[in-house]
Amino acid sequence: MDRGALGEGKMLQGSLDSSGPRFTPLVVVELASDTKEEAIAWILSRIRDQQQNGGAELLVEQLGPGVGAQEKENPNMFLVGATRQRLLSGAEEVGLFKECNDGSMRGFTCANKHNFKDFEGDGDSFLNMAECQYIIKHELDTLRAKDETHVPGHTQVKLYPGKSIIRRLQSKGILIQIFPLHGQEELKRLSFSWYKKVKLSFQPLDNIRHYYGEGQALYFGFLEYFTFALVPMALIGVPYYLFDWEDYDKYVIFAVFNLVWCTVILELWKRFSASLAYRWGTLSRKKAFEEPRPGFHGTLGFNPVTGRKEPLYPNAKRQLRVYLVSLPFVLLCLYLSLYIMMIYFQMEGWVLSFHDEEPTFWTGILMFIPSIIYAVVIEIMNLIYRYAAEFLTEWENHRLESSYQNHLVLKVLVFNFFNCFASLFYIAFVMQDMVLLRQSLATLLITSQILNQFMEAFLPYWLQRRRNKKMIRKVQKRRTVEEKELPLAEQVRLEADMSTYLGTFDDYLELFLLFGYVSLFSCTYPLAAVLVVLNNVTEVYSDAFKMCRVFKRPFSDPAANIGVWQLAFEAMSVIAIVTNCALIGMSPQVKAYFTESETQLILWTVAIEHMLLAFKFILTFLIPDVPKHIQIKLARLEFESLEALKKKALETWAGTVYLQSMIIVRVSLSLASWKGGWPHTNMKRITPRLQISEAGTKQKQSESVCWQANKR
Amino acid sequence: MDRGALGEGKMLQGSLDSSGPRFTPLVVVELASDTKEEAIAWILSRIRDQQQNGGAELLVEQLGPGVGAQEKENPNMFLVGATRQRLLSGAEEVGLFKECNDGSMRGFTCANKHNFKDFEGDGDSFLNMAECQYIIKHELDTLRAKDETHVPGHTQVKLYPGKSIIRRLQSKGILIQIFPLHGQEELKRLSFSWYKKVKLSFQPLDNIRHYYGEGQALYFGFLEYFTFALVPMALIGVPYYLFDWEDYDKYVIFAVFNLVWCTVILELWKRFSASLAYRWGTLSRKKAFEEPRPGFHGTLGFNPVTGRKEPLYPNAKRQLRVYLVSLPFVLLCLYLSLYIMMIYFQMEGWVLSFHDEEPTFWTGILMFIPSIIYAVVIEIMNLIYRYAAEFLTEWENHRLESSYQNHLVLKVLVFNFFNCFASLFYIAFVMQDMVLLRQSLATLLITSQILNQFMEAFLPYWLQRRRNKKMIRKVQKRRTVEEKELPLAEQVRLEADMSTYLGTFDDYLELFLLFGYVSLFSCTYPLAAVLVVLNNVTEVYSDAFKMCRVFKRPFSDPAANIGVWQLAFEAMSVIAIVTNCALIGMSPQVKAYFTESETQLILWTVAIEHMLLAFKFILTFLIPDVPKHIQIKLARLEFESLEALKKKALETWAGTVYLQSMIIVRVSLSLASWKGGWPHTNMKRITPRLQISEAGTKQKQSESVCWQANKR
Repeated sequence: MDRGALGEGKMLQGSLDSSGPRFTPLVVVELASDTKEEAIAWILSRIRDQQQNGGAELLVEQLGPGVGAQEKENPNMFLVGATRQRLLSGAEEVGLFKECNDGSMRGFTCANKHNFKDFEGDGDSFLNMAECQYIIKHELDTLRAKDETHVPGHTQVKLYPGKSIIRRLQSKGILIQIFPLHGQEELKRLSFSWYKKVKLSFQPLDNIRHYYGEGQALYFGFLEYFTFALVPMALIGVPYYLFDWEDYDKYVIFAVFNLVWCTVILELWKRFSASLAYRWGTLSRKKAFEEPRPGFHGTLGFNPVTGRKEPLYPNAKRQLRVYLVSLPFVLLCLYLSLYIMMIYFQMEGWVLSFHDEEPTFWTGILMFIPSIIYAVVIEIMNLIYRYAAEFLTEWENHRLESSYQNHLVLKVLVFNFFNCFASLFYIAFVMQDMVLLRQSLATLLITSQILNQFMEAFLPYWLQRRRNKKMIRKVQKRRTVEEKELPLAEQVRLEADMSTYLGTFDDYLELFLLFGYVSLFSCTYPLAAVLVVLNNVTEVYSDAFKMCRVFKRPFSDPAANIGVWQLAFEAMSVIAIVTNCALIGMSPQVKAYFTESETQLILWTVAIEHMLLAFKFILTFLIPDVPKHIQIKLARLEFESLEALKKKALETWAGTVYLQSMIIVRVSLSLASWKGGWPHTNMKRITPRLQISEAGTKQKQSESVCWQANKR
Repeated sequence: MDRGALGEGKMLQGSLDSSGPRFTPLVVVELASDTKEEAIAWILSRIRDQQQNGGAELLVEQLGPGVGAQEKENPNMFLVGATRQRLLSGAEEVGLFKECNDGSMRGFTCANKHNFKDFEGDGDSFLNMAECQYIIKHELDTLRAKDETHVPGHTQVKLYPGKSIIRRLQSKGILIQIFPLHGQEELKRLSFSWYKKVKLSFQPLDNIRHYYGEGQALYFGFLEYFTFALVPMALIGVPYYLFDWEDYDKYVIFAVFNLVWCTVILELWKRFSASLAYRWGTLSRKKAFEEPRPGFHGTLGFNPVTGRKEPLYPNAKRQLRVYLVSLPFVLLCLYLSLYIMMIYFQMEGWVLSFHDEEPTFWTGILMFIPSIIYAVVIEIMNLIYRYAAEFLTEWENHRLESSYQNHLVLKVLVFNFFNCFASLFYIAFVMQDMVLLRQSLATLLITSQILNQFMEAFLPYWLQRRRNKKMIRKVQKRRTVEEKELPLAEQVRLEADMSTYLGTFDDYLELFLLFGYVSLFSCTYPLAAVLVVLNNVTEVYSDAFKMCRVFKRPFSDPAANIGVWQLAFEAMSVIAIVTNCALIGMSPQVKAYFTESETQLILWTVAIEHMLLAFKFILTFLIPDVPKHIQIKLARLEFESLEALKKKALETWAGTVYLQSMIIVRVSLSLASWKGGWPHTNMKRITPRLQISEAGTKQKQSESVCWQANKR
C-alpha cells in the first residue's frame, strides 16, 4: 500500500524551508488580489474557528512570496490543512466508507476506528491524500454564514444565515479558485505505473482511485473496459477487412454480432462498475446533499423542504425558457447541421464528377478532401455548439448542479449525435451507397481521432511545458536547486497556473461518439473497431498523461457509477439495434432470399427488429445490475443496521425518526431494486426482518455477534 | 368519520351473551380438530405471554359451541383481540403511517401520539378495525420459537429458534386458517354507500380503504380510474359505430386516438395512485420484511444475510426447474392454444361455407357459434392453465412470496395474452379480414364478460346464500332470535365457512385483458370501449358485492401501488402502439396515399411507429411518477428525520449505524427517483443537507422548530 497523505505530508514538511507552513498543506485557496484586508482576516478566522463556534477548525496559512516575485503575482494564496484528528472526524462527517477487518465496507466512525482495516496506531496513514482533500473541501463548502449580513470590507457581497460562505465568495469573484495540491511523490509513482512504461497489463485502477478519486477511476475503468470489449470485434474485423476487401455484401454476420455485442457489454459493465464501486466504498454512499448551485439566482424565499431562506425561481419560468428558447435553438442548430451536411454532399458530388472526368492519382486523393473538411467542420461546430449549450443551460437557471448537468448533457448529446451521424444515416438509408458509407466512416473516424488527440493532449501539454520551463528558468535564476524539485511556494504557484480539469464530460462524450461509430456502422467498415481500439490505447496514455502533468489535480468525486452516460450509451445501443437490422435488411445477401417480394423482406426485417428490441429489454430486466455476492453483502450491512436500530425504535421518541428512516430505506431500496431484480434476483429481496416483538436480550446477542465478527 | 374499531368492538361486546369473550374479538384462529390439547395450551400461552418473554401479549379465548352444535363442528376456534395499549404499541411496531395535525403523514409513535390527528382521549377510535386486525396478524406472524424443538404433542412438527411459529403451524396443517372478522355495523354502512344505491358518484374509496385496507382500495381505485378513462373513447366510439357501421376504413383517427390514450392514461394513473397512497400513508411505507414463504423447503443452513438458520435451496436448481421444465411447459401450452385456434378457424370456415350454400336466419345465427365456443374454450383453458401455473410455480420452490408472485404473474400473463389475442392477431395481420376481426372481437368480448360475471359473482353468491339460509334456519330451530343479527358464535362459524378471497390477482387479470381488447383492436370495433365501460360498471357492483357478502374479510394489505400490474399494463400499451400503427398502415385510407409503392407505405409506417415508441419512452421519463406537492412533502419528512438524526450520529457508536442507514436512504432514494426525475423534477433532488460541521445549538433549534410545527 502507498503511504497515507499524512505520511506524505510529513515528507513535504521536512523538505520545506522555514517560510513554509507548519502543517501539511493539502488545499490551496486563491482570493482575488484586490480583496480587502478585513475580508481576508474574517475568512481566515472563520476557517480557523472551532466547530462549536461555527468554524471549520482547519489550519490555514498564507503562501510566502515566490522566488521570482513579480508585482503581477497574486499574494492572496492560502494553504489549508488540518490536524489528523480533525481529518478523521471529518471523514466521519462526510460518511466515508472504508474496509473493515471482516472485509465489509462500512461508514467510518472515530469511535469504532480500530475495527477498520489499515487503521494502525494514530491512523496516520489511514486516509489517503485525496480523501483528506475531499474532506477539507467538504468542510470549507459547509462553512456557513452566522449573523454576518455581508462580507467585511465588501458591503456589496451579502450573506444570509446558514448559506455557504465559500459558494458566495466564489460566485461574487472574491474567491478565484480552490484546488487540491498534487502529491509529487505519489504522482511520480502513479505516473510510472500508469503510462511511463509500455505494457500489456491493466491500468492501476486502485491507484488512480487512490490519487484522483472514484469518478476519475471509473472513467478510466470504463475506457479500459470498452477497449477490451472492442477487442473481439476488432479480431473479427481484421480478417473481414483483409479477405473480403471489396465484398460489401458479407456484413450480415458482422451486423448480427454487433447487435448482441452492444447489448451485452453494457449490461456487463453495470455489474463490473458495481463491483468497483463496492470495493471503493461508493456503492452505498452518495454525495450527501445538493445545495443550489453557485450561479443560481432568484428572489429570496423559503425552501418548501428545508424551510431555509434561499433564492427561489419559478419552475414555470424555467420551463418556458427550456421549451421556448432552448428547444427552438437546438432545433435550429440541427437544421444548420443538416444544411452543412447537404453542402458536403454537393462537394462530394462535385469532386466525384471531377475525378470521373480525368481520373489521376491526385484526383483520387482529392476524393477524400470533402470528407476531411466535413470532419473538421463537424468538430468545430461541436465546439461552438458546446459553448452555446453551456450558455443556454446556465441561462435556464437550474437550481441544482445535477439538473444543470442533465440538461447540458441532453443538449450536447442530441446535437453531437446528429452532427456526427446524420451524414452516415443519409448515405446508408437514403443514398444506399455502401462504398461511400465505408469511405465516409473511415474518414470521419480517423480525422476526428487525430483532431481529438491533438486538441486534448498535445496542445495543453505543449502550453504547460512552456509555462513549466519558464518557471524553472525563473527559479534557477535566483538560486541553485540541488534536487529537481521546486520549492513549495513555486510548486503551488505553478499548479495554480495549470489548466483546470473540467471533469469527465468531454472524455465520456468522445467515447460515446466512438461507441456510436462502432455499434452503428462498423459492419460496413470492419476496421472501425480496430481503429477505435488503437485510439483508446493512445487515449489511455494521453489522458493519463494530461491528468498527471497538464492539469491541476481535481477534487475527488465519490461517484458510484458513470451516471447519465450509462443511459446515453444504452440509448445508443437501442439505435444500434434498429440501424443494424435495417442494414441487414438492405444487404444483397438477405435480399437474395426475397427476390419476388420486397414487402416480405421489409416485414420480416421489422418483425425481427421488434423481437430483438423486446429481447434486449427483457435481458436488461433479467441481468441483475449488481453481482449477487455484493447484493448479499449490502443486504447484510443493512440488516445489521436495522437490527441495531430496532430496539431504540421502541424506547425513545428519537426512535420514531429512526423507524421512519428505516422504512424509507426499505421502500426506496425495494423501489431501486425493483428494476433490476425481477424475477431472478431473489437475494435482493431479502429485506431484513424487524424482530421488534422479541426480547431485547436476543437482539443484544445478535448485535454483539455482528460486531465481534468485525473485530476478528 | 366512522367510529374506530375499538368503539365498534364495544358495541359487539354489548350484544354478546355471557358465553362470549370479554374483549373485542378481531381475528379468528382455527386449529385442526385433531390438534393435541397440550399443543393448544402451548399456542395459547405463547400468544398470551408478555412481550419481554417472547410472547405476543394478545388476548385470546376459545369460541363457545354453536347453537346447533353438531359433532362435525370444529371446537378449536379461537378469538384473538388485544388491549388498546397493545394495539397502539403494535401500530408503532408495524410502522403505521397516520396523518399528523399539520397535515403530513408520519409513522405513528406512542410517545408522540397527541401530535396525530383524530387521536382523542385514550385513542379509542384512533385505529380502525382493519388496522387493528393487521396489527394482530403481524404480531401473530412474528411470534417466534424460543428454545422449543418441536410443537408440544406433535413431535413431528419441528421448530427452530427465531422462526415464525404461525407459519410453521400453517405449513404443517395444524393451523387451518386465520382470518379477520367482519365488522357488521361498518360493513352495512359501507355496502350501503358502495353498491346498494344506484348512483353516478365515485366509489367511497376512503371507506373501502378504511374497511379492507389499501391493496383493495387501490384495485377499486384503478377499476374506477380505468372506467372513467374509457369514457372519452366510448363517447367517440358510439357515433363511429352508429354512422359508419359498414365503413371499416375510417378507423385511422380512432387508432391514433388509441395510441395517445393508452400511453397517457397509464402515466396519469401512476400520479393518481401516488396521491392515493400518500393520503393513505403507504407511499413511504412498505411491508417491513420478507421471510421465506410457508411452502418453501430445503436443507437447513445459514442465511448469508441474517446469519439465521433457515432452509436453503440452491438457486441453480431453481433456475434449472424454471428453464428446463416450466419454460418448455409454457411453450407447449402456447402451442396447444395455437392448435385450438386453428381448429376454430376451420370451424369458422366450415360454418361460412354452410351459410354461403343456403343463407337463412338460422345459418346467420350459426355464424356466431364457433366464436362463442372458442370464447368458452379460451376461458376454460385459462382456468386449467392457471392451476398448472400455480402448481409449477409452487414446485419451483421460490424463497420469497414476491418472487413466487412474479413468476406466477409472468406465466399466467403470457399464456392469457396469447390465448385471448392470438386469434385476433391472426385475423388482423395474416388473414387481413377486418369484418371477421370485428365480429370475433365482439363475440370474444361479450362472451368472456358474461362468463366472468357469472363465475365471479353470481355463482359464489348463490352458494353463499344457501349456506347462509341453512345457518339461519338452524339457529331459528333452537331459539327465537329477536333481531336479525346472529349471535357471535354463529356469526364466526358462518364467516369461517365463507370462501376465502384469494387477492386481487384475478380481478387485475380481467382488467388487463379488457385493456388489451380496447387498446389493441378497438379501432375496428368502436363499441368495444362502450362494452368495457358497461362491464366495468357492473364489475364495480359485483366486486363490491362479493367483497361484502360472499368472501371472508381479507387482511388489509398496505400496498403503495398496483405493483407488477403497472408493468404489465405498460407492456400492453407498447404492444398497442405497434398494433395500432400496423392497423393504420393496413387501412385502405392510408394505402390510397401510397398507390404506386407498398414498400414506401411500410417504411413510413415503421418509421412513425418507431418515433411513437421513442416518444412514449421520453414521455415516461418526462412525467414525474409522483405529483410535485407530494414530492415536496416526502422530501420535507426525510429532511426532518435526517436533521433529527445527525446530532446523534456524531455522538455514539449507534450513530454510525444511523449514519449508514441515512446514507443508504439517500442513495436508494436517489436511485429510486432517478427514473422519473430526469430532467424535469428538480424537487426530487432536494436531498437534505447534513449540517454536521455546525454547532449543535443551531441544530437543536431547527429540530424544535420542526416539531413545534407539528404541534400546531
